[in-house]
Amino acid sequence: MAEPPPKSVLARGLSLLGAFGATDVELTLAQLSARTGLPKPTAHRLVAELVSWGGLERTEGGYRLGMTLFVLGQRVPRQRSLRDAALPYLEDLYEATHENIHLTVFDATDTLFLEKVTGRRSMPIVSRVGGRLPAHATASGKVFLALGPPSYLRRVVDAGLTRLTARTVVMPGLLRQDLARTVARGYGINREESETGVVAVAAPVHDHRRRVIAAVSIAGSAHRLDLERLAPAVRTAALALSREMASR
Amino acid sequence: MAEPPPKSVLARGLSLLGAFGATDVELTLAQLSARTGLPKPTAHRLVAELVSWGGLERTEGGYRLGMTLFVLGQRVPRQRSLRDAALPYLEDLYEATHENIHLTVFDATDTLFLEKVTGRRSMPIVSRVGGRLPAHATASGKVFLALGPPSYLRRVVDAGLTRLTARTVVMPGLLRQDLARTVARGYGINREESETGVVAVAAPVHDHRRRVIAAVSIAGSAHRLDLERLAPAVRTAALALSREMASR
Repeated sequence: MAEPPPKSVLARGLSLLGAFGATDVELTLAQLSARTGLPKPTAHRLVAELVSWGGLERTEGGYRLGMTLFVLGQRVPRQRSLRDAALPYLEDLYEATHENIHLTVFDATDTLFLEKVTGRRSMPIVSRVGGRLPAHATASGKVFLALGPPSYLRRVVDAGLTRLTARTVVMPGLLRQDLARTVARGYGINREESETGVVAVAAPVHDHRRRVIAAVSIAGSAHRLDLERLAPAVRTAALALSREMASR
Repeated sequence: MAEPPPKSVLARGLSLLGAFGATDVELTLAQLSARTGLPKPTAHRLVAELVSWGGLERTEGGYRLGMTLFVLGQRVPRQRSLRDAALPYLEDLYEATHENIHLTVFDATDTLFLEKVTGRRSMPIVSRVGGRLPAHATASGKVFLALGPPSYLRRVVDAGLTRLTARTVVMPGLLRQDLARTVARGYGINREESETGVVAVAAPVHDHRRRVIAAVSIAGSAHRLDLERLAPAVRTAALALSREMASR
C-alpha cells in the first residue's frame, strides 16, 4: 500500500530512514519502495546516498540502519545531558533493587525511554531505549500528565486513550482522578496498565524553573514489587537528579 | 572557512546534521552555513525540512539535533542486538567493581563506544556512548587489532598513530609487539595511553564463526586498578556474551 511520497528530495531521503520500524532489522529495496511510496529507481538512488553517508548499511538481503545514526543520536543534547547526569542515580537504584530502572521524557503523547538499566535478576519487560509507550498507561506518563502543562493531558485525551491491557485507564474521567492522586502523592503508579504482570512507580525530575523535564521509574513483577515501599527510593533519586540538572 | 558543499540535495541536507560535532549543543544558521559551505538561504530551507522531520529542533539561538535521531539511532541493529545482550553482563561487572564498564566495536580506525556503565564511585574518564578513541590507544582497540582481520591494523597504521598522551604507542613496530602480547594473553591492556592516569583491560566478544565483533572493558584509575586481577572478570563477561551472541 503506497502512500503519496514526500515532495522534496531531502524529505524523500529521510522517509527511507523512517521506513524502519521499532523492530525491523533489515528491509529490501522493494519494501523500502513500498513503505515510502517512492518508485524503485528513485529509492535505489537515494539509498545509495544514504549508504555513502552511513545512515544505511548494505546487507546480503537489503539494507539496515547504519552506525552514523547511532553516533548522531547520542549527540542529541536533550537526551545526552539528562542521561549523563542520571546514570549514577539509575545505577544506585538498580543496585539497591535489581529491578528495571528507567529514565523517560514526554514526547508527543508518549513516554519515551531515554535509558534503561536492567540485569539478570530483573523481570524482562517490553520497554526499550528509544522506544515508546502511551503516556496514560505508564507511571512516568502519569507524572508528566499530572505535573506538566495542561496541554499534555489535552493532547493525550484528544488522541484517544488506547487500551494495552485489561487494566489500562481508558476513560478520561478516571484518568483525571488517577492524576489527582498522582499530584497528591507526588509520584505516579502503573498497576499492570501497560503490560499484564508488570507494575511501576515513577517520580518527576525538575529543572531550575520547577518544570518537569523527565521521570525516573522502577518497573517489575506485580507479585514482587511493593510500590509504596519503593516510592521513597525513586523520589530520592529523582530529587537528586533534579538538583543536579538545576545546577548545570 | 567554507568547503565545497555536496552536490545532491539529500547529501546537502545530511551535511547539516553532520555539522554537529561531538560536543556541540547548538549551532546558529550562520555556523551551519559556514560548516557545510551551503549558502544561507539554501541552509535555511533545508534546516526547515529537517526541523519538520525531527532531526533538528529550533532553540532560542539556533538549532540542535532532535529526538528523531536518538530514536532512529536506537534502532540501529548492530548496536541494539549487542547492547541488549550485553547489558546484564556489564551490570554484573559494574556491581563487582564500581569502575567504568564499556562495550565497544571497531569502526574505521577507532574504538566506538556502544555502551558505558558508570557510577558515583567510578573515576570520571573521557569515554562517552557514541564517542570514539583511536584504536591503537585503547585496550579494546588492541583486541580488535590483535584478533581481528589484518586489514584493521593496516588501516590504522596507514592513518598514522596519533599521540594522545606521553605513553601512547606511536611506533608501528612497538604496536605490533604489544598486539603479539595481546594475542598471547587473550586480552588487551591500556596503561595511560589514551588519557593520563587512566588504565583499562579489554576482552574480545566473538560471534558463532569466532570473528571478533565487540569488546568488553573496564577502565579506571591507574593508582587503583589491578589490571591482571580484573582480567579474568572481563574475560568471563566477554565469554558469556560471546556464547549468547552465538546462540542468537
